[in-house]
Amino acid sequence: MIIVLKKEATDEDVTEVKSKIEEMGLRTHISKGAEYTVIGALGDESKLQEGKLRAMRIVEKVIPIMKPYKLVSREFQEENSIIDVCGVKVGGKNIVIIAGPCSVESRDQLLETAREVKKAGAHMLRGGAFKPRTSPYSFQGMEEEGLKLLSEAKKETGLPIVTEVMDTAQVELVAKYADVLQVGARNMQNFPLLKKLGKIDKTILLKRGLTATLDEFLMSAEYILAGGNKKVILCERGIRTFCTYTRNTLDLNIVPAIKKLTHLPIIVDPSHGTGRYDLVIPMSGASIAAGADGLSIEVHRNPEEAISDGDQTLTPKNFKKVVACVQRIAEAVGRCL
Amino acid sequence: MIIVLKKEATDEDVTEVKSKIEEMGLRTHISKGAEYTVIGALGDESKLQEGKLRAMRIVEKVIPIMKPYKLVSREFQEENSIIDVCGVKVGGKNIVIIAGPCSVESRDQLLETAREVKKAGAHMLRGGAFKPRTSPYSFQGMEEEGLKLLSEAKKETGLPIVTEVMDTAQVELVAKYADVLQVGARNMQNFPLLKKLGKIDKTILLKRGLTATLDEFLMSAEYILAGGNKKVILCERGIRTFCTYTRNTLDLNIVPAIKKLTHLPIIVDPSHGTGRYDLVIPMSGASIAAGADGLSIEVHRNPEEAISDGDQTLTPKNFKKVVACVQRIAEAVGRCL
Amino acid sequence: MIIVLKKEATDEDVTEVKSKIEEMGLRTHISKGAEYTVIGALGDESKLQEGKLRAMRIVEKVIPIMKPYKLVSREFQEENSIIDVCGVKVGGKNIVIIAGPCSVESRDQLLETAREVKKAGAHMLRGGAFKPRTSPYSFQGMEEEGLKLLSEAKKETGLPIVTEVMDTAQVELVAKYADVLQVGARNMQNFPLLKKLGKIDKTILLKRGLTATLDEFLMSAEYILAGGNKKVILCERGIRTFCTYTRNTLDLNIVPAIKKLTHLPIIVDPSHGTGRYDLVIPMSGASIAAGADGLSIEVHRNPEEAISDGDQTLTPKNFKKVVACVQRIAEAVGRCL
Amino acid sequence: MIIVLKKEATDEDVTEVKSKIEEMGLRTHISKGAEYTVIGALGDESKLQEGKLRAMRIVEKVIPIMKPYKLVSREFQEENSIIDVCGVKVGGKNIVIIAGPCSVESRDQLLETAREVKKAGAHMLRGGAFKPRTSPYSFQGMEEEGLKLLSEAKKETGLPIVTEVMDTAQVELVAKYADVLQVGARNMQNFPLLKKLGKIDKTILLKRGLTATLDEFLMSAEYILAGGNKKVILCERGIRTFCTYTRNTLDLNIVPAIKKLTHLPIIVDPSHGTGRYDLVIPMSGASIAAGADGLSIEVHRNPEEAISDGDQTLTPKNFKKVVACVQRIAEAVGRCL
Repeated sequence: MIIVLKKEATDEDVTEVKSKIEEMGLRTHISKGAEYTVIGALGDESKLQEGKLRAMRIVEKVIPIMKPYKLVSREFQEENSIIDVCGVKVGGKNIVIIAGPCSVESRDQLLETAREVKKAGAHMLRGGAFKPRTSPYSFQGMEEEGLKLLSEAKKETGLPIVTEVMDTAQVELVAKYADVLQVGARNMQNFPLLKKLGKIDKTILLKRGLTATLDEFLMSAEYILAGGNKKVILCERGIRTFCTYTRNTLDLNIVPAIKKLTHLPIIVDPSHGTGRYDLVIPMSGASIAAGADGLSIEVHRNPEEAISDGDQTLTPKNFKKVVACVQRIAEAVGRCL
Repeated sequence: MIIVLKKEATDEDVTEVKSKIEEMGLRTHISKGAEYTVIGALGDESKLQEGKLRAMRIVEKVIPIMKPYKLVSREFQEENSIIDVCGVKVGGKNIVIIAGPCSVESRDQLLETAREVKKAGAHMLRGGAFKPRTSPYSFQGMEEEGLKLLSEAKKETGLPIVTEVMDTAQVELVAKYADVLQVGARNMQNFPLLKKLGKIDKTILLKRGLTATLDEFLMSAEYILAGGNKKVILCERGIRTFCTYTRNTLDLNIVPAIKKLTHLPIIVDPSHGTGRYDLVIPMSGASIAAGADGLSIEVHRNPEEAISDGDQTLTPKNFKKVVACVQRIAEAVGRCL
Repeated sequence: MIIVLKKEATDEDVTEVKSKIEEMGLRTHISKGAEYTVIGALGDESKLQEGKLRAMRIVEKVIPIMKPYKLVSREFQEENSIIDVCGVKVGGKNIVIIAGPCSVESRDQLLETAREVKKAGAHMLRGGAFKPRTSPYSFQGMEEEGLKLLSEAKKETGLPIVTEVMDTAQVELVAKYADVLQVGARNMQNFPLLKKLGKIDKTILLKRGLTATLDEFLMSAEYILAGGNKKVILCERGIRTFCTYTRNTLDLNIVPAIKKLTHLPIIVDPSHGTGRYDLVIPMSGASIAAGADGLSIEVHRNPEEAISDGDQTLTPKNFKKVVACVQRIAEAVGRCL
Repeated sequence: MIIVLKKEATDEDVTEVKSKIEEMGLRTHISKGAEYTVIGALGDESKLQEGKLRAMRIVEKVIPIMKPYKLVSREFQEENSIIDVCGVKVGGKNIVIIAGPCSVESRDQLLETAREVKKAGAHMLRGGAFKPRTSPYSFQGMEEEGLKLLSEAKKETGLPIVTEVMDTAQVELVAKYADVLQVGARNMQNFPLLKKLGKIDKTILLKRGLTATLDEFLMSAEYILAGGNKKVILCERGIRTFCTYTRNTLDLNIVPAIKKLTHLPIIVDPSHGTGRYDLVIPMSGASIAAGADGLSIEVHRNPEEAISDGDQTLTPKNFKKVVACVQRIAEAVGRCL
């Protein structure tokens, strides 16, 4: 941590700040410039109560030097984490594709779609039973009945199940049916939920918040790992920008950035990331070229009948094209499907 | 709802879209332009499953005309809602000031600060017992012990208590001690929490999300009213922008905008909205000039010792200056303290 | 400047970076932490070629400590700059109001509006002769003919003229007629234009860019002062955010922030800052409460006939209300009209 | 254009709005809903003075239906524009790579780098002679001397020259030496410059503004085409977002979106788009997978000595890796280098 003092700081001010830092258990190192005095705080930054320093009226600014996260960092674990979901390995050389409808709507809809995506090459099945909706008047999901249908689809197809959990009170129920519990973008900083997910033995798919920075995203993953659960898959699903032609803006920069900073796998959701089914094919390829470990894609046997997100949902036929495209790009970057 | 069809739409396409809308229970009205065919869907827009229309490949775009919220709108209720919190009225002619520390840290800290803000003119006491923190390694709040101290402070000063609730599992406990339950910015779209708060008989202080649009903010309030709880106070607490000199950017435009669109009261939190104690005085005045019904301000007997948010926290002395400034501005705009 | 080296930095690396900094004419100061080595570069930061340090593969990050601007800073000049425009003083105790139509459209429109705003209490007249328009098919302004009409309006009313300059090739012409040359938001970083305006003897009204940071805004002012022209008035005119109910989001936080950082005056444009005539009154008051030195407001004798910006333009009658409101708020904060 | 009237609109109001639209030369079509009256304005939307309608106090909102641009649209020209720059074709099946230093710094630096990028497979040479810099105290470019060096480099290597023009006053000079005139992100809405570039017979490389929407970007291209110059190449160079780990956020979504909306070619600049040399390789591949027609990449014989942008600049060795990666991805998506 670097603490910059205001120009008018006296020797007593410097001594006061120095003492405060040393009381917190760190060593200090003082550089006096012509304009500013800079104090370096060396040692375990996590002990430093940054707010108390910021609150000192003589402090100009406080600049953290170390990364705020530990367990998720590449420095903590050099080799990639490979997460095993019922035999499907995420984070290794193989690209993993998760596919299925936005919402579970009915037995027929789910099972038919599940068969189609399985046939086309998907490795896991997604489908929402608890749905976060902006309006209280929109369809809120089939809840437990939906979970049971997902379970039935798994039994038939063998595909592991990915489904969303929105609240601490749902964790136990969802964990009973699902193989991967998804945390939605709007819940990325739902800290009680993250804490509870840190205590269970299931894989968590953590979606990036709409305007989350990289540090915030990784700190949310850190909450889960700090609780004891190491099985976290990160997911870029598009951020909010001023470009409204697409529903969100896929930030593929963070794919190679995440790969540098953390050992956790990262997949991309081009369905939410674009909001337009005709952009899903090219952006799926781009995601893999950027280094993603997999994709999560919305597929429906008949998107025009989908209750939610029909405009960004692929037909099974278009999904096959995605898989073919991904295969070619994966090979071009030395990976495989 | 206006549905614009693609240029290449044939008569059959028009008929198909028309039928789909009519099946949903709305009437249609067709205008054929030189370039586009536009279909107006008249009637109860809430019956319209917008997604299904967007998913039709011949549909260019779907444009909602009506506001998505009802119960919170000025059209639903013309006169201002005035929320009574233990005798303090929010939303009327009087400006209401909520003050207190960011976190409850100890008995002494809380009681002393409570006495000071009471003396200076505050109408309610704020203080966090459950704290949403970006890092799992930061102080997470005193939890129930903190709530008990707040209760004690209320007993001594008579000030009603405002404190945050972060999860459905905490609602019952927090409601036992608090008069106003605060929903933090990161939970503005925690839908299970909003639903649960719609079922209790306590006032809710709903903070705007970091990058929430006006519609999203009001739809979150709609969740609470739709559940049956009409006692909602809105709070602007600054949005995320590219200007990092201040912690957030206070969006005062929305104060008069909200006043036009909804009957609910709105207050402003200039502490989070600026992140700098020296900006709190001018921005408190500006908030009232813009038409806000009140303020929520962080005050600590000794900000340099505050565990969290010390840099944006006022001393009791500076808080008095805020109250004096607010009084003058309130009079200038025909209101009173 | 603080230079943080990567964890793996060897003693030779440290020496290499140290030498590079010293070659640039600064002194160095080294702190070795358990995790990082931090090098402080002391002396004249402007000599430091930051990019060359960033480009070194062993450098983790480079953190500037000093402000990048000089001439505009409070440290360079402690007392407020008071800019005299034909006798109207901007930046002192008095609030200054600039008013007039978005575009100069005709002799009648301009002269009538000029008389009205003069009567209502405006101190300067605004009106665009060169118009920056998103579309090449929109009205582009009356150009020199418009400037001549502005000049005529000044002759009649005595109000100094504020009008926009868009290109270096227009500077001489605009300066012949105008008292204040306005630089629009989209030109805030038109560096050749800023340089040219630094060489003339006229007041410059510099509008903040749509997503400009405080540093970028002040650096653009610095360009003008560095050229020799000290007469710069800053103008907050709203930034781009995700809230589309208003055309832009007025960022009033920067008013007190600018007052701390620079000696230059700052005014607010609530017409562009809200894009809605009915929000202009409350936000004018809020701007003055926040500490602004003045306002720039669009007024048209008949907004429904305005060629541009009619929706955010006041009638003369509403403008009078703004002046009355501003007067009351000005008094409440110890200033006058 | 759809005009929505306020709830309280009377029959006279409807007639008034109707007449106003018809005076502008369009036909009207009225739909009365239970809550709103909606007027469709059919015909040539460009004749409609939207502002005048928005300014009517009875109008709730005005919603454009047609795209604001014409000449650049796919509807105007179905087949791809293929721009020929001294024999290099941009916009066809072949991927085009532009490479070179951020700034021209010296004869040796430029010629050596030019030889290296030519050898590695680049098709054009880039290098800035006029530099837009945030600070007036930073290196502003070698100006005409730099242009002469670029010309010399072209003579030796045969590579066409791409260089920036910042002001109308520079257009003639830059056009004398350059084959492609680049408009920087901060000048995307410098309308006088765009107009002047519409009148010359040189290819224009138009970079997207930092927070430009798709419509704004295409409208700026429309300015150039409307002037008569059809040779425009678009360039995505990253947008400003809240993620500061990378300098900008590359928005690859717009690549396939642009391909749908316009016939103009689009290339990507992953150097500015990431700001980190180690992200340039994966993001170059991702750009091509997304459908880009080419790349613009900063290369310097020795990035640690570059005066500007060293941290995002590749060594010739790393540039070769980019070319190899691009080649493989190009083949995977049916294109070639």
